[in-house]
Amino acid sequence: MSKNIQQTMLKSVEDELMRQVARLDQPRTKQFHEMLTYHMGWTGEGAGSNATGKRIRPLLTLLTVASCLSEEKVENKTGRNWLHAISAAASIELIHNFSLVHDDIQDNSDLRRGRKTVWVHWGAPMAINVGDALFVIANQSMLDLEKNYPAEIAVRAAKILSENCLRLTEGQYLDMSYEERNDLKIEDYWPMVGGKTSSLLSACTQIGALLGYANNERVEAFRLFGYHLGLAFQVQDDILGIWGNAEVTGKSIASDLVEGKNSLPVLYGLEANGRFAQRWQQGPISASEVASVAALLEEEGGKSYAEDLSKSETDKALGYLAQANPQGEAGAIILEITNQLLKRKQ
Amino acid sequence: MSKNIQQTMLKSVEDELMRQVARLDQPRTKQFHEMLTYHMGWTGEGAGSNATGKRIRPLLTLLTVASCLSEEKVENKTGRNWLHAISAAASIELIHNFSLVHDDIQDNSDLRRGRKTVWVHWGAPMAINVGDALFVIANQSMLDLEKNYPAEIAVRAAKILSENCLRLTEGQYLDMSYEERNDLKIEDYWPMVGGKTSSLLSACTQIGALLGYANNERVEAFRLFGYHLGLAFQVQDDILGIWGNAEVTGKSIASDLVEGKNSLPVLYGLEANGRFAQRWQQGPISASEVASVAALLEEEGGKSYAEDLSKSETDKALGYLAQANPQGEAGAIILEITNQLLKRKQ
Repeated sequence: MSKNIQQTMLKSVEDELMRQVARLDQPRTKQFHEMLTYHMGWTGEGAGSNATGKRIRPLLTLLTVASCLSEEKVENKTGRNWLHAISAAASIELIHNFSLVHDDIQDNSDLRRGRKTVWVHWGAPMAINVGDALFVIANQSMLDLEKNYPAEIAVRAAKILSENCLRLTEGQYLDMSYEERNDLKIEDYWPMVGGKTSSLLSACTQIGALLGYANNERVEAFRLFGYHLGLAFQVQDDILGIWGNAEVTGKSIASDLVEGKNSLPVLYGLEANGRFAQRWQQGPISASEVASVAALLEEEGGKSYAEDLSKSETDKALGYLAQANPQGEAGAIILEITNQLLKRKQ
Repeated sequence: MSKNIQQTMLKSVEDELMRQVARLDQPRTKQFHEMLTYHMGWTGEGAGSNATGKRIRPLLTLLTVASCLSEEKVENKTGRNWLHAISAAASIELIHNFSLVHDDIQDNSDLRRGRKTVWVHWGAPMAINVGDALFVIANQSMLDLEKNYPAEIAVRAAKILSENCLRLTEGQYLDMSYEERNDLKIEDYWPMVGGKTSSLLSACTQIGALLGYANNERVEAFRLFGYHLGLAFQVQDDILGIWGNAEVTGKSIASDLVEGKNSLPVLYGLEANGRFAQRWQQGPISASEVASVAALLEEEGGKSYAEDLSKSETDKALGYLAQANPQGEAGAIILEITNQLLKRKQ
């Protein structure tokens, strides 16, 4: 049963995404359309469910809508339905994908979900334009809400999206600017991941609650749930990036150390200013050194510090979720997904 | 008098643009904010009126609003004012500037309005993000309309903007894809310049009329005016790019031939398939060859063909403008600016 509604939602999301992206499916822009459908995971080499990603953002959006609607029995009978919010769910996923396409150029990444990135396939100039087009279509999708909601609500949802997109560009700026700095502190971490990871997740839950006709207090609880879910997830991801099991995470062990990523454990180690910090500041860490540097960082307290933070952010997220009081089957699935995300058992 | 309202509008536009971009003016993102203010022409080396560009798009937007309002005497007295549309005018200028920042990366251009481009200054990864942030702020500016207009109108304006942004990315795609083709025809020209040049100009006049409370018929006449104004301007620009006077255009003579730009006269020459086409297909044209190749293209009819098209597009633009029937001083200035743009006397 639980899997049922989730599968129905995911199918609806995929259909809506295709419908939105098809705005570019015109004779003259066939190849351009193909660049977008390739990135979305629908066409080209390696297309399929491994290539699309998990669509966690649109799913979370729709589950939030449904979890707010399900107690409003009367209104449900008048036709309110999570499907009304489908274009908003697609919009957030398109924003996520626009940022991935640009991020891959910025990071010089060759692979995304095991496939060539758009810029490797068609060159950076085309890839910039592919990202831009995904961004435009995301805006159009959000405004499509007007078909099912009063214009005031469509505007409010679009404003929440934009506000969080701005946070996304700020996070991206901080991330890139940190690469040139060697005076980073733990306090520099939160605005970066708040922008890069939490902003869109909080947009999902905030917009979802708004479109579920929740009151302001509940919308705010859902927003904070999404925000802290993002922080907890990111800290968890940082820990796995250094001490994770490659078979579980799908990343090579400790790749974050080799890549010089300014993750939370690393910033803790830098602020502790011990032997780890000394080694970090001497330059890139090679694959053969990784195990000893990771052990050093653990010894100096970087791992347990990050674990504590992950736990406290998880507690905050679950606290706000309890406050948001999601209803019915959708509410149960939100809790289930949250636990999955934060424990990474899947 | 005429100069007066124009100057007032331009001052208001600049203030609004600064106010909108200041969303990034926070302690942590000071340098990021600076990248945007540099591109907008306000800060850094060479800042000033030469660096900002002419702000023709926001000016045209506000003049259109005013030219629609000025016959509604009664409603004007109730407080309707072109200033209510200021955030929409700023929005379109921000979209234009987002596209310039990305365009400069895509074209590998070192200079913009005589100054280093953003990517030359801070690197391509940062510049991609600067363009993205300008795009986000453009969306926020458009939604700010809700302060002065019903939400339905804000949504309609935002939809018109997005529709034209999509055309912009299509035009950009076509332009880049044409670089690799040697079978281009004249018919390939119009969708490219329709997207790259006309889309935003038609957004100015369409949104301007909407925000001036014009009826649908008049909004459509204004839209078509802006669209054909863009086409006429682009064809004019193409002619000047090959046969123009460097002192008037500020470009080096015939730079378009050296750059291999697929302009209208060139596409005419290719379709004519004579000696010009033969030479073009042999590879890049050097500066020393430019005069003879330009003469060859003129001889084979490329110049007079483009001049005819420029004239017919100008006539269409002026015809739709007459139909749109702009009122008062603002209406007179629109006509004046149109003539200036299409004759390039300034």
